[in-house]
Amino acid sequence: MTAANPPRVVVVGAGFGGLWSLRTLARAPVELLLADRHNYHTFLPLLYQVAAAELEPEEIAYPVRSILRGHPRARFVLANVQDLDLPGHRVLCDGPPLVYDYLILALGSVSHVFGIPGAAEYSLPLKSVDQGIVLRNHILESLEHAVREPDAERRRRLLTFTIVGGGPTGAEFAGALAELLYGPIKSDYPMLDFREVRVLVVEASEGLLAGLPQSLRDYAPRRLRAMGVDVRLRAAVTRITPETVHLKDGTIIPTETVIWTAGVRGDPAAENWGLPMARNGRVAVLPTLQLPEHPEVYVVGDLAYVEQDGKPLPMVAPVAMQQGETAARNILRQINGQEPLPFRYKEHGMMATIGRNAAVAQIGGRTFTGFPAWVVWLLVHLVQLIGFRQRLVVMLSWAWDYFFFERVVRLILPSMPRTVPHSSENPADSWQKPQ
Amino acid sequence: MTAANPPRVVVVGAGFGGLWSLRTLARAPVELLLADRHNYHTFLPLLYQVAAAELEPEEIAYPVRSILRGHPRARFVLANVQDLDLPGHRVLCDGPPLVYDYLILALGSVSHVFGIPGAAEYSLPLKSVDQGIVLRNHILESLEHAVREPDAERRRRLLTFTIVGGGPTGAEFAGALAELLYGPIKSDYPMLDFREVRVLVVEASEGLLAGLPQSLRDYAPRRLRAMGVDVRLRAAVTRITPETVHLKDGTIIPTETVIWTAGVRGDPAAENWGLPMARNGRVAVLPTLQLPEHPEVYVVGDLAYVEQDGKPLPMVAPVAMQQGETAARNILRQINGQEPLPFRYKEHGMMATIGRNAAVAQIGGRTFTGFPAWVVWLLVHLVQLIGFRQRLVVMLSWAWDYFFFERVVRLILPSMPRTVPHSSENPADSWQKPQ
Repeated sequence: MTAANPPRVVVVGAGFGGLWSLRTLARAPVELLLADRHNYHTFLPLLYQVAAAELEPEEIAYPVRSILRGHPRARFVLANVQDLDLPGHRVLCDGPPLVYDYLILALGSVSHVFGIPGAAEYSLPLKSVDQGIVLRNHILESLEHAVREPDAERRRRLLTFTIVGGGPTGAEFAGALAELLYGPIKSDYPMLDFREVRVLVVEASEGLLAGLPQSLRDYAPRRLRAMGVDVRLRAAVTRITPETVHLKDGTIIPTETVIWTAGVRGDPAAENWGLPMARNGRVAVLPTLQLPEHPEVYVVGDLAYVEQDGKPLPMVAPVAMQQGETAARNILRQINGQEPLPFRYKEHGMMATIGRNAAVAQIGGRTFTGFPAWVVWLLVHLVQLIGFRQRLVVMLSWAWDYFFFERVVRLILPSMPRTVPHSSENPADSWQKPQ
Repeated sequence: MTAANPPRVVVVGAGFGGLWSLRTLARAPVELLLADRHNYHTFLPLLYQVAAAELEPEEIAYPVRSILRGHPRARFVLANVQDLDLPGHRVLCDGPPLVYDYLILALGSVSHVFGIPGAAEYSLPLKSVDQGIVLRNHILESLEHAVREPDAERRRRLLTFTIVGGGPTGAEFAGALAELLYGPIKSDYPMLDFREVRVLVVEASEGLLAGLPQSLRDYAPRRLRAMGVDVRLRAAVTRITPETVHLKDGTIIPTETVIWTAGVRGDPAAENWGLPMARNGRVAVLPTLQLPEHPEVYVVGDLAYVEQDGKPLPMVAPVAMQQGETAARNILRQINGQEPLPFRYKEHGMMATIGRNAAVAQIGGRTFTGFPAWVVWLLVHLVQLIGFRQRLVVMLSWAWDYFFFERVVRLILPSMPRTVPHSSENPADSWQKPQ
């Protein structure tokens, strides 16, 4: 008499959705395999700080195998997933196929330019560590080129940094960038006229930080403007060229650095594999997070389109974590012969940081701005960072910045191409950008 | 009555030679310009620790503009130097030309494969931060590929790491790599059979660490072997393929990772620009470090060929620092109408670390091995690291490794091509690898 093989669960994607599934399944009687095309988890909420030379890439990336040490039953495989064989229960990738009894897809999202001419070619996305490094290098190189540029017009273009999109990423990055440029960078470049240095946030809608309570949304542009950021609301971008951003009202902004934070969509791999699409490149799933007609396949995180109270759930880390847990628990229910339960998102709060001592936060029914919100933001992110060493090092970097008004990572390093494509142009490379 | 313009000194290269020239000139009545194609100084003596996932790249790279904050008279320009116009006193680069009254060339060296077939194509060099990152990624990717490789022969090739050259870089890297693989990596890959994991050092001469006293040279292979490293002496490499290293005695080592530390030469740019060559791509200079027939041009560091007591000076940091100081002082003498003085190297000591609690050091007339030498090595390198923050962070990383037997940076990050050319193949890219 032999015991039956334990059911095999494959999780694709080591973002928040994937890791929280894994955590929930780690002690269950299943065989667990995690696949990702990177060997690290990216703490995306702090990615903008890598681009703003505030944190080192290593501080927001954590080796997957270190995480798995705590879960000896789980295995990891570094793999580029290329297709799904749903009838055959197989994930096809560049190595041997991964065979599953249950599958959790947590591919995340990529940046999305909505077909705006020039946006894919001439704006820089901010959705992966590599893109964060490219953006940091680009900003620092623009300053270096400005130093030796005799033509005043070109120099001003080099010194104009335009952020398209006023969501959390855009607003947080604008604050961090203004602090970088008007702080440590100013000491590094005494020969530059800092009246020529400009940071713009261009947002198509009425205000920044859509989705937050109005009092917090009012605070953000006020605070950013006080920091020297030029905030343009009701300003829809119609076209981007290597030297300009064009707005709907005819305004032309001369700028050689455009950061695109105005849109994300589900990873295009899911659409390419023929999964049922809802909206915005996100997969139509059942309330239980299962694929229709494939009860053994779950989709979680940014890639899953789920409505709650008539509105689509936002593409943020807490949703992904909770969905990862729900998918894992539903699989355990199925194994035990029970029905999977529908997912319901419990919102604990939302927050965004604008800069030094300045943030907005909503926790429970209460809202905070300024210093108290900033302290809350700091503590929450420190606690969430995976790994004790990461926490320690990030805290050191932040303390250093805070007390010495300094930035630690002003290196154009390593030498990489000055632009990386938005992932939608490079499907082979795009299957996994953890949300 | 107007004062004459101060003489203009251009320093090319922000390695040890360039920076030590700059320091010496910083308070003198000259106009100072430093040019480098990177915006950071690289602390090359610790580069091997980046490749061994022990330090983050940011810990051994320091922004040049931060260094210059202490020297307000000096300016920096990020530039790719393309040629010299010696008669016109101009350095030609991708921006406007740099006009000088005095020039200090400190281009450093690049790795050199002596025409051994396959070495340029299939071995990885270790002479720049970018190369260190590529090597780290390659090692970690080899382990990931080995995990999913069913073919035992290919798996063993993936798990065989061959270091060609037993000088300080080769010996230090071998020790660090063995500690990485048999320590933290072993905990990360419980599914691998670590009897299949091999680190080899292949050295053509009689022993490791040529140039050090015999007692220290005897210690190194003994210690490395005790750590599990396969040290092959009198083993000349005749050919490298993607899957093998061929030795003169007919031995074929199946291996997919070959690290080339067996040779360096002066930066080929100097030869391309028509400077007078001595040996090994190094420029023939007068004892005063001046170019013959160009008393206004100095060459320092690895690029300068200088003999002392009938032997060429080694290509190491202390020589470059002292030559940088001498060149700077000679320029000040020339400005004051005095004759430049010949350079004389004062050796304070030599040291190399083999691993945990194990190093060799010669200081003054005394030699140390083992733990005492290791403590000396540690303190000397900490003191030499530029910048207080770098020292603090490196110390933390080392302490972490030491007490937790852990490595901090096991990330395949960022995604870069798996191989970089040896610089000699890519002259456009090679003018500045600080020694």
